[in-house]
Amino acid sequence: MSLPPEFSLIARHFLPLAGEGALALSDDAAVLDMPAGQLVLAADAMVANVHFLPEDPPETIGRKLLRVNLSDLAAMGAKPLGYLMTVALPKGTTPEWLDAFAAGLALDQAGYGLSVLGGDTVSTPGPLTLSLTILGTVPPGQALLRRGARAGDEIWVSGTIGDGALGLRAARGTLADDGFLAGRYRLPQPRVALGQALRGVARAAMDVSDGLVQDCGHLCRLAGCGATIEAGAVPLSPGARAALQADPALLPLILSGGDDYELLFAAAPADAGRVAEAGRAASTPVTRIGLFTDDGADVRVLDPNGSEMSLPKGGWSHF
Amino acid sequence: MSLPPEFSLIARHFLPLAGEGALALSDDAAVLDMPAGQLVLAADAMVANVHFLPEDPPETIGRKLLRVNLSDLAAMGAKPLGYLMTVALPKGTTPEWLDAFAAGLALDQAGYGLSVLGGDTVSTPGPLTLSLTILGTVPPGQALLRRGARAGDEIWVSGTIGDGALGLRAARGTLADDGFLAGRYRLPQPRVALGQALRGVARAAMDVSDGLVQDCGHLCRLAGCGATIEAGAVPLSPGARAALQADPALLPLILSGGDDYELLFAAAPADAGRVAEAGRAASTPVTRIGLFTDDGADVRVLDPNGSEMSLPKGGWSHF
Repeated sequence: MSLPPEFSLIARHFLPLAGEGALALSDDAAVLDMPAGQLVLAADAMVANVHFLPEDPPETIGRKLLRVNLSDLAAMGAKPLGYLMTVALPKGTTPEWLDAFAAGLALDQAGYGLSVLGGDTVSTPGPLTLSLTILGTVPPGQALLRRGARAGDEIWVSGTIGDGALGLRAARGTLADDGFLAGRYRLPQPRVALGQALRGVARAAMDVSDGLVQDCGHLCRLAGCGATIEAGAVPLSPGARAALQADPALLPLILSGGDDYELLFAAAPADAGRVAEAGRAASTPVTRIGLFTDDGADVRVLDPNGSEMSLPKGGWSHF
Repeated sequence: MSLPPEFSLIARHFLPLAGEGALALSDDAAVLDMPAGQLVLAADAMVANVHFLPEDPPETIGRKLLRVNLSDLAAMGAKPLGYLMTVALPKGTTPEWLDAFAAGLALDQAGYGLSVLGGDTVSTPGPLTLSLTILGTVPPGQALLRRGARAGDEIWVSGTIGDGALGLRAARGTLADDGFLAGRYRLPQPRVALGQALRGVARAAMDVSDGLVQDCGHLCRLAGCGATIEAGAVPLSPGARAALQADPALLPLILSGGDDYELLFAAAPADAGRVAEAGRAASTPVTRIGLFTDDGADVRVLDPNGSEMSLPKGGWSHF
């Protein structure tokens, strides 16, 4: 009996990505020996024209979703273990597109040390829609949580902020770019090593996906405190700095645009040296950008002159 | 700062479904204590107009996906632990629709003993698209696998075959039905208790999703043997029996139409009593429908007169 196209598609494109426990993607489920520690689990979905551009290089589309999920693991201080992915493909998706899509995933599997454990491939009359569930592990009780910041703690971020939101404009051709910003939009850098290095150092952590200011608000709400961010201290890439010099009105987008996938975390001032050490150990820049406060305010952002900035409410939600 | 609609949507509809370890769906990931045994993982996606009808009752749509995934756990002999779900919602999805969607999930969470651990809610310009990753556990080394059938083993199925494929026609209004068949299409009965009872009894197992004949072919390929199924022995519900009496040409659809979510498994003839005992323990009917063979043939289906039937190749793949 001949097998329908789904089977040959899986055999050609996804079987080479399958890891131990995946049972060659030919059983009803994967079976994994229980690893040590606690299990960390996250899931994210991406839809063409909502979360990425259909004309984005296929090599980057699956990788972006994998990296967004890896960023969730990083925010918890977890070590990647594996993932399951479902793919709803529009009619006319070519084997060549799928080859490139899978090749991108293979690169990141090697780079981040995880493999595919299972999934599902279906057709859709709508846009390409991807969903990914990631599994990781942390030593018992050592997961970094969003709750736990205290007034007086310092606010830190990894890497640079604003590249993702600026990069979306660059990818759409509405912002000048030498390719750096669009690349940051298409392929965020999940801070997996830094997250693990911050276990026992950061008091609270999350990844910046909705926008720096909004996400800082999440940490505040869970901690019952406020925050003051100094806009001038927020680390910018050379590309973002150039864009901001050309158009100072881009600052709110940088601070609230989201898609950064950098770590935002709280640490006691006395632990600043340990934070810097974690950054060095993970080869990841870390920058102090403000303080958690108990002045009754929400998140305040001070411009380089010390005046409070007015920013759009609620970030740029995809929903 | 006000929160965007995604947050209130999650709080209203999905937070009540969240289980231990889900961190109130307000962190970057769930953190679970490692359960005993091995971890069993599966993922499936469903798209409106491909896997369900947009006008299906919202109570059944999420439950169907959950049950399809529970059926994968059942096929492995695994005990449900939890799930993550991503939902891509078309514009205009109402809170009332989501209320009913979540209420259906809540019923099955209670019935099957699991809870939601995480997920993602996004908007889509396309059809409603759902993806679900399920987690379960098995005692080490006891997972039921698809490989392992041997020539001479008996072929068994649980429940009744054909209701799903007939039920799709009934739900579309092209087949007379008192509601039973459409109900079986909308809400399959994953054989979770039976799967666990068959550990150490069945030599190979899977769930019937692509169609009985095609899925039996999967077991054969992995075992390097053939199979003979007696069509007259295949258990039918009263609804399927009535439909077949009215139109005998429906038999191929019953045998190859899929969406059954019954267990198909191999057991040594000497273990027939243990299989029957497992069925009783799980309150689930089990029926012998044929034999695995070494006559060099693929899956042969004999009609009630003992003549080999000709069936469409490859089942009715969704892809």
